[in-house]
Amino acid sequence: MNGRYGDTMVDEDKLFNLLGNETRRMILRMLSSGPCYTTEIAEKLNVGQKAINEHMRLLQEAGLVDLYVQKQSRGSPRKYFKINKSVRLEFFIGPYRFDTSLAKLFDGDFKKLFLEFPQLKEFEEKVKKSRHIREISKLSLVFDSLNEEHAKITQAKDYIEHKMDQVRQQCISVCDQLGLDDTEKRIVLEIVSAGGVVSTKQLAERLNIGEDRAISVLSVLEDKGILLTQ
Amino acid sequence: MNGRYGDTMVDEDKLFNLLGNETRRMILRMLSSGPCYTTEIAEKLNVGQKAINEHMRLLQEAGLVDLYVQKQSRGSPRKYFKINKSVRLEFFIGPYRFDTSLAKLFDGDFKKLFLEFPQLKEFEEKVKKSRHIREISKLSLVFDSLNEEHAKITQAKDYIEHKMDQVRQQCISVCDQLGLDDTEKRIVLEIVSAGGVVSTKQLAERLNIGEDRAISVLSVLEDKGILLTQ
Repeated sequence: MNGRYGDTMVDEDKLFNLLGNETRRMILRMLSSGPCYTTEIAEKLNVGQKAINEHMRLLQEAGLVDLYVQKQSRGSPRKYFKINKSVRLEFFIGPYRFDTSLAKLFDGDFKKLFLEFPQLKEFEEKVKKSRHIREISKLSLVFDSLNEEHAKITQAKDYIEHKMDQVRQQCISVCDQLGLDDTEKRIVLEIVSAGGVVSTKQLAERLNIGEDRAISVLSVLEDKGILLTQ
Repeated sequence: MNGRYGDTMVDEDKLFNLLGNETRRMILRMLSSGPCYTTEIAEKLNVGQKAINEHMRLLQEAGLVDLYVQKQSRGSPRKYFKINKSVRLEFFIGPYRFDTSLAKLFDGDFKKLFLEFPQLKEFEEKVKKSRHIREISKLSLVFDSLNEEHAKITQAKDYIEHKMDQVRQQCISVCDQLGLDDTEKRIVLEIVSAGGVVSTKQLAERLNIGEDRAISVLSVLEDKGILLTQ
């Protein structure tokens, strides 16, 4: 929903469908530590080559995996697969929330980020220096400090999401006091979660109702003085 | 893998399998704005009641959804379903990374968190006060500021993950220089990503190889002076 992913080959729904299959998850895990060729994947996962071909086709179609051919010193060339981008998929479910988001990794303007999170500045230098480190043990140490920061930031994110849940809960309780019905409640919740503004098209999609129905409920809510329609 | 989820009814693999189905995602989306009963779900999604029953059974089994029965003023009592916990599932895939994590929302010791992220303190008070707000528009404003903070924190997390990717890349390049083979490289990468320490059992699981094989590769890496085995 909140997809911030630019080139749209991958979308959340497609990705969930792909990841719903255990073999595909295992293939992606294999590829995440280096390119592999079909026979190799089939043998390691103990799955028929035909099935693997089909999985690879779907992963390629989704734009997650690239194919390249490498000549061998003996025998015929091999088809290798590799993961071609870094993607984070998030799914959130709760009594008052359903959200998915797909993000590319941040590689933009650090200056603004460092103003908000000055503690991140040290990592810029540290990781830059790591390009010249040749001992695994020292890279491990750098990674360790990144892991630690990651855990802290994740906790901060959890905290904010927990606060969001509390505000949603209050919103539901206000709706109940106002005697709103289910659809009205859902619409109010969507609008609040979107920070106040959302299009009727988005509403209809998210709530799985017709756009006409969304518009008529919105006008009821406006008449009741609960929402302003723009 | 990095599951921080306490009561283990839900695990990542189970959740991916559940979410791989579009109808189930739509059911969860419906329930995220309030409890629903079977007929209601079947009608709104235009799916047969028998299929819905099966989906609900799976969602209940996974511990995501609870069932309760409510008497009706007319007719027989209705079976209602509701989402019973807040869960965040993350999936990360990249050329050097495959990770999933499952988290409950943070509701622990804020003091330590506020030391690291003093800007979060204001939300504690703001959200507490929101419990008494009875206008939707004012709740929207509180939510708006939470959304903004959420976006910033997400960017900080993206940044750290991007830095992690860069260190992993350097690790791969050192492995290549050392002439390590695929499995050796994978093992080194797993160990570095874990911040230096990982059990042979975890390694075997993550790389989908036998524990014996993991142990023998580790001892080769130790002989080469690349790793220390404990």
